[in-house]
Amino acid sequence: MDKEVIVRHPDGGEAPDRVAVEEPLQITVDGHPVAVLMRTPGDDADLVRGFLRTEGVLRHGEEMRALDLEARPNHAHVFLRDDTEWDVTKLSRNLFSASSCGICGKATIEAVMGESPPLPEGPIIPRASLLAAPERMLERQSVFARTGGLHACAWFTAEGELGLIREDVGRHNAMDKVIGAGIAAGLPLAEGFLMVSGRLSFELVQKALAARVGVVAAVSAPSSLAVEFAERANQTLVGFLRPPRFNLYTHPLRIG
Amino acid sequence: MDKEVIVRHPDGGEAPDRVAVEEPLQITVDGHPVAVLMRTPGDDADLVRGFLRTEGVLRHGEEMRALDLEARPNHAHVFLRDDTEWDVTKLSRNLFSASSCGICGKATIEAVMGESPPLPEGPIIPRASLLAAPERMLERQSVFARTGGLHACAWFTAEGELGLIREDVGRHNAMDKVIGAGIAAGLPLAEGFLMVSGRLSFELVQKALAARVGVVAAVSAPSSLAVEFAERANQTLVGFLRPPRFNLYTHPLRIG
Repeated sequence: MDKEVIVRHPDGGEAPDRVAVEEPLQITVDGHPVAVLMRTPGDDADLVRGFLRTEGVLRHGEEMRALDLEARPNHAHVFLRDDTEWDVTKLSRNLFSASSCGICGKATIEAVMGESPPLPEGPIIPRASLLAAPERMLERQSVFARTGGLHACAWFTAEGELGLIREDVGRHNAMDKVIGAGIAAGLPLAEGFLMVSGRLSFELVQKALAARVGVVAAVSAPSSLAVEFAERANQTLVGFLRPPRFNLYTHPLRIG
Repeated sequence: MDKEVIVRHPDGGEAPDRVAVEEPLQITVDGHPVAVLMRTPGDDADLVRGFLRTEGVLRHGEEMRALDLEARPNHAHVFLRDDTEWDVTKLSRNLFSASSCGICGKATIEAVMGESPPLPEGPIIPRASLLAAPERMLERQSVFARTGGLHACAWFTAEGELGLIREDVGRHNAMDKVIGAGIAAGLPLAEGFLMVSGRLSFELVQKALAARVGVVAAVSAPSSLAVEFAERANQTLVGFLRPPRFNLYTHPLRIG
């Protein structure tokens, strides 16, 4: 989603140009404000569902009884089933107590593992599915995402079919939208793989784990903590996926 | 800062490769934990000073009496002067009360303006200084940042001299490091301009405003909210700075 602005060029000329839309979305759960996300409007229901799931506020994503996006612009009011336990403190997970053990990559990883245990083996993703993914993703990206104005995230089946693609100014939002849409549609996310248009940070790999996805691919590089996390979580990390090449950073046995 | 990992290639070969380091840093102020940042280690003192300033916890950045980075790895213990007023709730600024007015780009902008009023006129940045900036920045970036493994942010004088450059896996951290280093060195940040290696989000433009910097340039595009914010804050936004061209999105009169 983009929007027209007027730009001036060094030669003095003026012309309309387009910029990616970024707007706040406030999420409330049963009336309690839990977060404000800076996001690109569109697919807000997917974003809310995915965000609450990958941040650990919801355990399944199916606890949502109703979602009201119409009451006020840029507000998402979530209502849970009566018997749902939810934990808003999960959102402040990154604020560790100074009184416990030291803080380091390992402690950060262990804190997340407490919520989302490491994955079992499988699935096997054929090399051909991986290698076909970048072009299939590009075909389905908006012009705007292709030119780098937006991040994109897609979910593919093991056979390499593109099942879902979403875009956002925030790479973590793009992934939350894909995961939220997958949960809503009942897709077997764990049987396929996720791909992102940019780099892989710790945060993205952790979101993929929350959705129980074992193979995560990226056009660019992972960070050191993304690699350490994936190693421990039994996730397969693919970087620099630029056919005919790619780099396998962790757990290569899932790539067949 | 980067780190060696072993990668496997599709042909079955293995080779060492390097990834950008990402590790948590916990910041405490007078013993109270205030944030955990996922950052690239290095220039931690700059990062802490810049972060506390641009997030509004500190008003000047000179209220820090001591900063202890040695007590424990990945911990930054900040101690303030006795007469300092500080406000940890500023960090939760993004969590707006649902009971007030609606949430929208305008409300978000107004909330920030309450802390950091719009800028006065000036300085004038010669076009030649802007056009020279990308190459000067590139010369000083690490190999790793040049290949896209890290974000970079730099501060230039109006004459186009590169005064400061910092790198990080997070673009907001790179800018906080530059601003923190500038405050510590007593540099006249407001008289020069900031440049970032990627895109300009709302968050980056807001951090520049907190440091009272009136001209912000980027190699890539701004978001819609970055443009709207800069318009209201009287900041000059330069995008797609790729000599001999650039786009001026707001307040063109500062470019001479």
